[in-house]
Amino acid sequence: MTDRKGTAVRKTAPSNRSRLRRKYERGRYDKESLYEILDSCLLAHVGYVLDGAPVVTPTLYWREGNHIYWHGSSASRMLRKSVGYEVCLTVSELDGLVLARSGMHHSVNYRSAMLFGTAHKVTRREDKIERMRIFVEQMFPGRWEQLREINEQEVKATTILGMPIDEAAAKVRAGGPVDDEEDYGHPVWAGVIPFVPKTPGEPVPDDRQEPDTAMPDHVRNYRVARKVT
Amino acid sequence: MTDRKGTAVRKTAPSNRSRLRRKYERGRYDKESLYEILDSCLLAHVGYVLDGAPVVTPTLYWREGNHIYWHGSSASRMLRKSVGYEVCLTVSELDGLVLARSGMHHSVNYRSAMLFGTAHKVTRREDKIERMRIFVEQMFPGRWEQLREINEQEVKATTILGMPIDEAAAKVRAGGPVDDEEDYGHPVWAGVIPFVPKTPGEPVPDDRQEPDTAMPDHVRNYRVARKVT
Repeated sequence: MTDRKGTAVRKTAPSNRSRLRRKYERGRYDKESLYEILDSCLLAHVGYVLDGAPVVTPTLYWREGNHIYWHGSSASRMLRKSVGYEVCLTVSELDGLVLARSGMHHSVNYRSAMLFGTAHKVTRREDKIERMRIFVEQMFPGRWEQLREINEQEVKATTILGMPIDEAAAKVRAGGPVDDEEDYGHPVWAGVIPFVPKTPGEPVPDDRQEPDTAMPDHVRNYRVARKVT
Repeated sequence: MTDRKGTAVRKTAPSNRSRLRRKYERGRYDKESLYEILDSCLLAHVGYVLDGAPVVTPTLYWREGNHIYWHGSSASRMLRKSVGYEVCLTVSELDGLVLARSGMHHSVNYRSAMLFGTAHKVTRREDKIERMRIFVEQMFPGRWEQLREINEQEVKATTILGMPIDEAAAKVRAGGPVDDEEDYGHPVWAGVIPFVPKTPGEPVPDDRQEPDTAMPDHVRNYRVARKVT
């Protein structure tokens, strides 16, 4: 199968649980579709199991090649309870509201990526620093070198988790409503209310900023999409 | 404890797992804070446990009083595997990026609500229709009456889950970076890149719309925030 641009699109799931049961025509299992969603968003919701019950925590993430990473304080319960355990990391963006002629066919336009796997911890000091450098540089090119240098205590206080993007599914809905054929004549407005893509506003300098501090390009021209190599 | 407006703010958690371990100063357990976050967002991430492993699914939700609801196809694995089981429903909005003088103190401004509970199914036909009516009316006032009427097959094909908002925590971060005192002189731009709140763009009428169909107020003046009674 190929998409509109003629690129091969993987339509078979890498595992049973990542296989879409319903609306499978919205599913994509190829890396390109997954990466596109991951690189255009910032926030993930990570699910883990605590005493047999699910917990879903929002967190930033970043992608390096075929690996996904997230991080936080070494004291974080979410991170401690995820290492070596199965997690589900989901990234979703709501693109619009789809208004149909019947309540039933109302829908939303969205892009989502669901990643399954066992979280591993980045343990080597040099690897941790390099991961954090890449995380910062993907969002704010040139910033890492401008920061006060990271110290040993900070490296220890930060836990970085990661997993390969091997068991994953993307799901995308776009376009207008699909109504029952006999409802098209029903006299109600139908269509899409699209959402404006997530946009940065005017940067707000810190109160304690030196007044003559220049605003760097990575702030002035900040965009949500990340350039991943 | 009171917030800036002098309102009493509940600062103790209703349960052990909903108690914030870290950054507890960002925590709110009072209903007003929770409702404010829930009513200003649209998308939740629902976590459930499937064969011992977590699954996190994005879905719309709505609030009625102290109850939260979400819905989908009766064939949905997520809904079937949630009824009678513990779930975690998390709603998060990323409000801005916080740039500090050290990598360590970079942060994000956000609002999030995490709800724990056991999902129950709305079973009575009349209750299901009323829930769906309220869901539609909260988003698009006046629309329910304009739609082609719901039929029995559609009621059966829709599963609605709900739970009381009893075990929940909200977490909010706002404001600029908090750096180590000795870093304030470090010559790097610091501050906040705020995000523009989620905004509807120009509505796109369906291709098969009758050309003289008027655009109703609930489309023209659509706003993300919902009015919940």
